[in-house]
Amino acid sequence: MALKRKDLLTIRELESDEIHLILDTADSMKEIASRDIKKVPALRGKTLINLFYEPSTRTRTSFEIAGKWLSADVINISTTVSSVTKGESLLDTGKTLQAMRPDVVVIRHPVPGAPKILADRLQASIINAGDGAHEHPTQALLDLLTIRERLGRLKGLTVAIVGDISHSRVARSGIQAMRKVGMDVRVAGPPTLLPRHPEELGAQVTTDVEAAIADADVIMMLRIQRERQGPTLLPSLREYSRLFGLTVERVKKAREGVLIMHPGPLNRGVEIAPEVADGPYSLILDQVTNGVAIRMALLYLLTGGHAATN
Amino acid sequence: MALKRKDLLTIRELESDEIHLILDTADSMKEIASRDIKKVPALRGKTLINLFYEPSTRTRTSFEIAGKWLSADVINISTTVSSVTKGESLLDTGKTLQAMRPDVVVIRHPVPGAPKILADRLQASIINAGDGAHEHPTQALLDLLTIRERLGRLKGLTVAIVGDISHSRVARSGIQAMRKVGMDVRVAGPPTLLPRHPEELGAQVTTDVEAAIADADVIMMLRIQRERQGPTLLPSLREYSRLFGLTVERVKKAREGVLIMHPGPLNRGVEIAPEVADGPYSLILDQVTNGVAIRMALLYLLTGGHAATN
Amino acid sequence: MALKRKDLLTIRELESDEIHLILDTADSMKEIASRDIKKVPALRGKTLINLFYEPSTRTRTSFEIAGKWLSADVINISTTVSSVTKGESLLDTGKTLQAMRPDVVVIRHPVPGAPKILADRLQASIINAGDGAHEHPTQALLDLLTIRERLGRLKGLTVAIVGDISHSRVARSGIQAMRKVGMDVRVAGPPTLLPRHPEELGAQVTTDVEAAIADADVIMMLRIQRERQGPTLLPSLREYSRLFGLTVERVKKAREGVLIMHPGPLNRGVEIAPEVADGPYSLILDQVTNGVAIRMALLYLLTGGHAATN
Repeated sequence: MALKRKDLLTIRELESDEIHLILDTADSMKEIASRDIKKVPALRGKTLINLFYEPSTRTRTSFEIAGKWLSADVINISTTVSSVTKGESLLDTGKTLQAMRPDVVVIRHPVPGAPKILADRLQASIINAGDGAHEHPTQALLDLLTIRERLGRLKGLTVAIVGDISHSRVARSGIQAMRKVGMDVRVAGPPTLLPRHPEELGAQVTTDVEAAIADADVIMMLRIQRERQGPTLLPSLREYSRLFGLTVERVKKAREGVLIMHPGPLNRGVEIAPEVADGPYSLILDQVTNGVAIRMALLYLLTGGHAATN
Repeated sequence: MALKRKDLLTIRELESDEIHLILDTADSMKEIASRDIKKVPALRGKTLINLFYEPSTRTRTSFEIAGKWLSADVINISTTVSSVTKGESLLDTGKTLQAMRPDVVVIRHPVPGAPKILADRLQASIINAGDGAHEHPTQALLDLLTIRERLGRLKGLTVAIVGDISHSRVARSGIQAMRKVGMDVRVAGPPTLLPRHPEELGAQVTTDVEAAIADADVIMMLRIQRERQGPTLLPSLREYSRLFGLTVERVKKAREGVLIMHPGPLNRGVEIAPEVADGPYSLILDQVTNGVAIRMALLYLLTGGHAATN
Repeated sequence: MALKRKDLLTIRELESDEIHLILDTADSMKEIASRDIKKVPALRGKTLINLFYEPSTRTRTSFEIAGKWLSADVINISTTVSSVTKGESLLDTGKTLQAMRPDVVVIRHPVPGAPKILADRLQASIINAGDGAHEHPTQALLDLLTIRERLGRLKGLTVAIVGDISHSRVARSGIQAMRKVGMDVRVAGPPTLLPRHPEELGAQVTTDVEAAIADADVIMMLRIQRERQGPTLLPSLREYSRLFGLTVERVKKAREGVLIMHPGPLNRGVEIAPEVADGPYSLILDQVTNGVAIRMALLYLLTGGHAATN
């Protein structure tokens, strides 16, 4: 079975069976990643450009490794919006890159919708690696893969997402992905960091973190952006940690063996206690490992690969 | 036929038949770039170092892609003149890199003649990717390839180059390349941005842009450097645009179907109107595509490859 | 024979026969580096991450070339301690990278012991590419290779190391390596830049540079860090140069044909005169060439390769 689309821009646009196809393909890719010789020729002669307008170590590295293990040529372009190629607009940059005939362009950009601007005009497959507070679809897919791998299923599970819901592309993509595969989602956070129209999320919304995590199968903590701290949004990191941080005590009130996730990087002692992040039910490093597999799967499927299974 | 030189430093040093050899080789390389699997083993086991002392997305990426499609190992070094390796001089940096046995070093540097300093002392082939206001020979070659591809010939054609002629390495290399293959060149720009000794250029010089572009086969607009704006060189971008910008009205006064070129990145609405840049006679993106082919050709020829044709 | 260790963190931990194994393997690697096609499949499907928390051109490039010639996939991460991945700790960064399944992580970090933090917790092989003023073991190994190559032996030779001994990881690793293979070491420098407990070094210590270099087989000059200049440590660069710089006159007082080394980058005219650096007995560029070979050898041995010889 093949993925019948050129780009991956949002989770919103994906059908449920497309999500399952990507997850199944990622399962096959994990086998490659576990080999002693991590190299297959699937994307030999294909060119991947990593176009990052925001600093990123983990996501850029994950895509770069994914591309290289599939034998693609990988080109990194790290820039900032203010200085990019002497003021060239995003679309001009995109068209210039397209003229060099890449097969895939992975883009991270601070402006919501930036990847779609490229996708509408470029022949290359565009993968959204995070666009402002909009979407981060590969993160959502790797989160599903991680949960499915551990619990054997997705449908009917309950996930509690805790933190800065309103500014988080991880939350936005995650909630949509979970809803599409039949999971129940609850979100919790300070009122200033909850969305104004929570009913649009398809999630239960609360300011009571303990209510949110009670009986949840999975708790997903979001990274707190320290720059939100100040009189308007966040009183103090200590206060935030006390009210919303995932402490050992709080985990004890949740279901036994509840799975713990976090997209990283961690603010240890702020949104998550070190003992929880490093505990036996933490899937945080599995998420990273599965990130490479998801990105391999997407690179493979978007450049015309077919899933072996299905 | 082989290119009998170690380095490509300037257009000035090239014979006309060398230029044609490079263009013919680039034609073959374009075929590779159009394949589904863009990879040939020509430079397998060869090492290319991209040594960039000025920020560059397009030229660095173009050389990197060219090297990778030919199976070379590509190493990027991006630095600035002030901080490079703790104050090491260019020549010491060059000798250090030479000691690592690269086959080709591509250098961009703000100082005119910097590539020659390396070429005189290093065994590796040196390619000048822009040295101050001196030369940018690969740009001139890709421009010729682009014109020849569209018009089937070069000799006897007339090109008008408009903008900051006196500070432009693109203009300097371009004019010399065009003269060597028998093209006529006219240059136009504000008097403050025209060379003091225009007769040395081998080009007709005017401050009247419409006179320059009348009957020209090709109009090549140069990027205006915003930092030249001020009391001495450029009154204002709006004024520059009005007097020298390539507007739709101005194109209408030129020959029907006149070809439009620009080395990029574009200042849309300053030196070129968006409708012109994106219009049917614009070759701006062909220039980018041909840039990869020219760089593949040079990497191939300078490391000992022979042209299949000729 | 194989190297029975996961990591290379310090020279201190190495046995003498391990040092010889690495040098012998590097000799074989030099043969590859001298080929027209510099590529062997030894590390195909292995992933090397260059994790550099300090700027470096030469060491990073050397490891990158070494990895690529062995066919490894090489990922560069350049960052600074202050901004790294939004404040993530070194260990969290390390565990995140480990979750992407690299085979080797090369780390340069300003904090002594940083590589060991990773080595203790990560499955990947860790290579210390310089940790603060602590150790720089690959530099010491390439220095030994360079001396052995020229003089045919190491045991019984005398080396004089001159400069800022107390802050130099090059000196610290170098002295230990030389002592382990049976060389005699003398160090010289201003009293403010000599170690407080010189007897721990296993080297003779003096402030008289001419006494140190008399009868030495090799003189190794250290790079002076200009930031040490000031009232407390270094009176002035001119004064330093006069008292401790390796001038032609000073070389004439040493043994005829004494070999000259420097880890680079050079401060020409400060710690070393240009005529000496570029003279017939200078091994400075051999050190760079041998650096690639040593790093190839270590990548090969640490990922399970066996030395052909022995």
